[in-house]
Order: sequence, then structure tokens, then C-alpha cells
Amino acid sequence: MKRKIFLLLILCVPLSVVAESVLPSWADGATRDSIVAFVESVTNNNGPDFVAEPERIAVFDNDGNLWAEQPAYFQLLFAIDRVKAMAPDHPEWQQQQPFKGIIENDLKAALADGEKALLEIVMATHGGMTTDEFAASVTQWIDTARHPTTGRPFTSMVYQPMLELLDYLRANGFKTYIVSGGGVELMRVFSETVYGIPPEQVVGSTIKTEFKIVDDKPVLVRLPEIDFIDDKAGKPVAINKFIGRRPIAAFGNSDGDYEMLRWVTSGDGARFGLIVHHTDAEREWAYDRESHIGKLDKALTEANERGWTVVDMKNDWLRIFP
Amino acid sequence: MKRKIFLLLILCVPLSVVAESVLPSWADGATRDSIVAFVESVTNNNGPDFVAEPERIAVFDNDGNLWAEQPAYFQLLFAIDRVKAMAPDHPEWQQQQPFKGIIENDLKAALADGEKALLEIVMATHGGMTTDEFAASVTQWIDTARHPTTGRPFTSMVYQPMLELLDYLRANGFKTYIVSGGGVELMRVFSETVYGIPPEQVVGSTIKTEFKIVDDKPVLVRLPEIDFIDDKAGKPVAINKFIGRRPIAAFGNSDGDYEMLRWVTSGDGARFGLIVHHTDAEREWAYDRESHIGKLDKALTEANERGWTVVDMKNDWLRIFP
Repeated sequence: MKRKIFLLLILCVPLSVVAESVLPSWADGATRDSIVAFVESVTNNNGPDFVAEPERIAVFDNDGNLWAEQPAYFQLLFAIDRVKAMAPDHPEWQQQQPFKGIIENDLKAALADGEKALLEIVMATHGGMTTDEFAASVTQWIDTARHPTTGRPFTSMVYQPMLELLDYLRANGFKTYIVSGGGVELMRVFSETVYGIPPEQVVGSTIKTEFKIVDDKPVLVRLPEIDFIDDKAGKPVAINKFIGRRPIAAFGNSDGDYEMLRWVTSGDGARFGLIVHHTDAEREWAYDRESHIGKLDKALTEANERGWTVVDMKNDWLRIFP
Repeated sequence: MKRKIFLLLILCVPLSVVAESVLPSWADGATRDSIVAFVESVTNNNGPDFVAEPERIAVFDNDGNLWAEQPAYFQLLFAIDRVKAMAPDHPEWQQQQPFKGIIENDLKAALADGEKALLEIVMATHGGMTTDEFAASVTQWIDTARHPTTGRPFTSMVYQPMLELLDYLRANGFKTYIVSGGGVELMRVFSETVYGIPPEQVVGSTIKTEFKIVDDKPVLVRLPEIDFIDDKAGKPVAINKFIGRRPIAAFGNSDGDYEMLRWVTSGDGARFGLIVHHTDAEREWAYDRESHIGKLDKALTEANERGWTVVDMKNDWLRIFP
């Protein structure tokens, strides 16, 4: 009996030692164990699940998965701030929705037209300038804007456990990608410094750009026209287009990630899918099936059947923000 | 005087030693020196032109730049072979151009309708199957097909000096990308083994794909519809979309690369542009301003003014194919 316990101890020790040192903000338990077990299986080159390093690709949703998304997608907050900053150059906006509502801090009036209003706001603030000019406006915002309820910079609203997970995967030879419904050129401004993910590993929604030579100088002009929405069934399409091979691990938090999770976890060999379930109303927000932002319904229902790990944010994460 | 010569010798030796060992198929001279001087300047972290490693991105056209493109783009030869292979399942093609002409080896009749015929051939052979099925058909072709005039496998029609250049750049911390007008999913099948360029670093033309769940299994179906043509002004647009930062070096061989060369070499700091000029009718092919394939006119005219290096294939390359 003693011998058995001793053997069990020996077998268990390496796993928990590794887990505790590499994922310190993750609570001890089945969730963290599932991550560590997957990583150890695909990196063990004597095991049946070994995956060669170039194939170790992991994809991460951004909003609600790497950083928060409440009380509104941060990109919408950026767009609202941009409308206000641009308003002096657009006197006509004083009388014109959705801009009038934003300038008067009456978001309800601004968004009364729903999707049409949103699209107008995005196009006015994201199109009609060069790519360099847009990146400069994002940098300026990221450096100065504060989250409306926490007062933190938006880049401090990232999830510490996910930062540790990104590092842990990269330390094990994974290439980490963002695959987000958000605008790619907004995320690329901060992805390298905040997440350690370089611009070329960020896949997202795009608007059309046009190459022009102005005064003998080439520029790329952002057009007020949607190119691609990287959400839902668009995610596997974009993964195939941008990455060109099927990732072996996918991390998301909403039904917008359902198709990506299906695509990634139905490939041959060892696969890993994980859903961040927002269950912590005190330290973050609690929402799922009924939420307008980050609705998590179908993916949560099927998680067990599909073998996806579900993170209970309240109990699995010892810390939320850095 | 002797001292001066001695100093000159000391200064010159390191450059030529490096150059000879790293680019053995490049002739000694100004062309090779320009490459080595650029690489040494951006990797010298005490120099004024130093570029941090993540920003060392180099983009390469494929057809006529990394592999040959005569007597026709290899992708067209693939499509022609596919039509023949698929013909038994399409009895209607016996009476229907452009397929009839291909089956009867009458390319002139097949291509009589010009671009419309080409598009029909490409759509029939590149669309209407899953991404996995398409990749399998490319693999099968790459493994068995032979070039019509040299009898070599197509993957042996790559340029040895360019393979050395790719290795040399990567050894100096560069990330090498393909940015080609060719179909991205064709190149990705062989880019890693032949060029050392992984699928996720291949940018090219795309057709639309659709995510579907068939018998509870997710697939991506290739639709017979063009998504994006990665040529001319499309190249800087695609570079921005896929890579998200401006490369510091661009390598091309035709006017299809003009906008890419302009975009890359007009950025701040040290920049490098290079054009492969096909001047060797004996060992390869000689063509430029009047050619229908790989037309090189405007880019050649402006090369000097723009500071782009022009490779005279006949004299600058000691060897063409591996």
C-alpha cells in the first residue's frame, strides 16, 4: 500500500510542479491539468501524440478571451472617442445621427438605427485615411484612454492567466495567433508589446485598402468598405487563408468561436479546445447565454460532448488582471 | 603606400569571405556585393542602419523569381494536367471549350477565348472540392509531373542562387515570405520543403472558401469564385493585410512586382529592392519588355532611379538550377 502511494506521488509530482511554476494564476485542478496534459503529450517525442514544432499552432480569440469586452467591445469605445476627437472637423455631425448622439453622450440615440449606425461610426473613424495615420490614432488612444468602469488603461484589461498561457505555449514551441472578429489593424498596434504576438500573427476583420502613389510616395488608403468579417464561419476560412494549416489548439469564449473550435478540434491527432466562461461578476463580469456581447450558448452546450475544456473564471483563475 | 594597400586588404577581406561562403552560386561582383552590404548594414547593431530582428522581413515573388515560369506559368500546366485527369468524370467536356482543346492537346483552340477560357480552366480545376482534396491533387501532381522542355520535376526548376539567398537572409534573422500572384494553396504544398518557407509565410491569390459541416465533420469547400488577385497593386495591399508591417527587402522579376518594390523600398531606414532579369537564353530563358509571361518593362526602366539591384542572370548566376 505504502509503495503504491509512493509511486502515485512520484507520478503526480512532475505534473503539478510544472503546472504551478508555469501557470501561477491558474487554480490547481482539472482545468489547469487539462492544459498541461495536452502540452506535455504533444511535446513528448516518444509519445503517440507528439506533434512536430512547425505544426504546433494555437489560435486565440481576443475580445473576452485575451482582454475584457464589457460594457462594450473596446473597439467601439475607441470609435466613440474618435468621433469626439474628429467632431471639430465635421460641423455637420452636430445635426446628424449617429454622430450627434455620440457628441452629446446620448449613446441610445446614436445607436437607435442598430447595425447601420454602428457601421457608419466604424467607417467614419476607421476609413478615409492612410494605414500609417490610422495606426497613429490607435497608438494615441491606447496610450491615453481609460476603461469607463475600472479606470484602467485598456491594455491593463488583459487576462493575466491567458498571458501566462501564451508564454507557456510559446515556451513549448507553439506559434500563437490571434483570430478575432475585431479589426486587425487596431490589435496589431499593441499585440506584440502586450501579448508577445507579432503583427503577422494577428488575423482579424479587415476593411478594404487601396494602393496609391501620392506625390511620388506610395501609401495605402483605408476605404470605408468592409473587406472581411472574421467571425463565426469566417474564422476557419481566415485561418485557412492566413495560416494555411490547421491549428492544434483553439481558445475562445463565445459562439463566435464555435466554428473555429469545431475546425481545430476535429483534425487528426491530439487537439485542444478551451472556452473561457465569464462567471465572475465581482472581479470581472458574469454573462453567457443571454448576453448581447460575447454570447456563449451553443458552444457551452456542446463543450462536454466535443471534449472542450471550460474555464470557470471565478474558480479557475486566481487572478484576473495583471 | 604599402600601408594603405594593406589597410584596404584588411577592410575588403571580411566582406568577400562572407560573400563567397554564403552565396556560392552568385558571381563575384556588384550584384552580390549589394546584397551582402545591405544584410551587413541592417544586422550591425552598432551601425546607423541597424534593424531589429522582428522587423527584418523580406518578400519574394515566386514565378520567375524563385522558380521558372516558361513556357507557361506552372500553375497553368497543373490546371491543364488536372483537366485531363478529371476528363473521364466529365464526358460533356469532349464537346466543350476550353476543355475540348485541352483534351485534344490543341491549346490554341482551348485558349481562343483568352481570359474567359483561362478562368474557366482554373475554376474547374481549383474549385468545387475541399481544401484537403485540393492539396492532395497538388501533392500528387508535384510528385509526378515533369516540365515540358527540361523533363525535370517542377520543384527542381527552382533557382539555386535564390535558395542560397533565402538561407542567407534567414541565417541573418530575416523572416522570408512569398508574395506571389500564384494561388496560395498550390504553393503552400511545397514551399516548406523546397524553399524552407512555411505555409503561414506564403501570401498569394485566393479563391473563396466556405465553411460547412458535412456528416458532423467540418470542411472548407473551395468555391469557383475569385477572392483576391495578389498581383501589381494587390501585392502591397496583401502585404499589409497578411504581414501587417512593411518589409525591408523585396525580390521580384516583373512589372507585377513594381508596386511591391515601390512600397517596400520607400519606407524609412535601410531598404533593399532586387529584380531578377531573365537574360540567359541558353541555360534558362531570355525575356523582358515584350514578354506575355513575366513582362518586365516599367520596373526595369526605373530600377536605377529607385536604387534597385538588377540581377543579370547570365552573368551574375554561376548556376541556375540545383
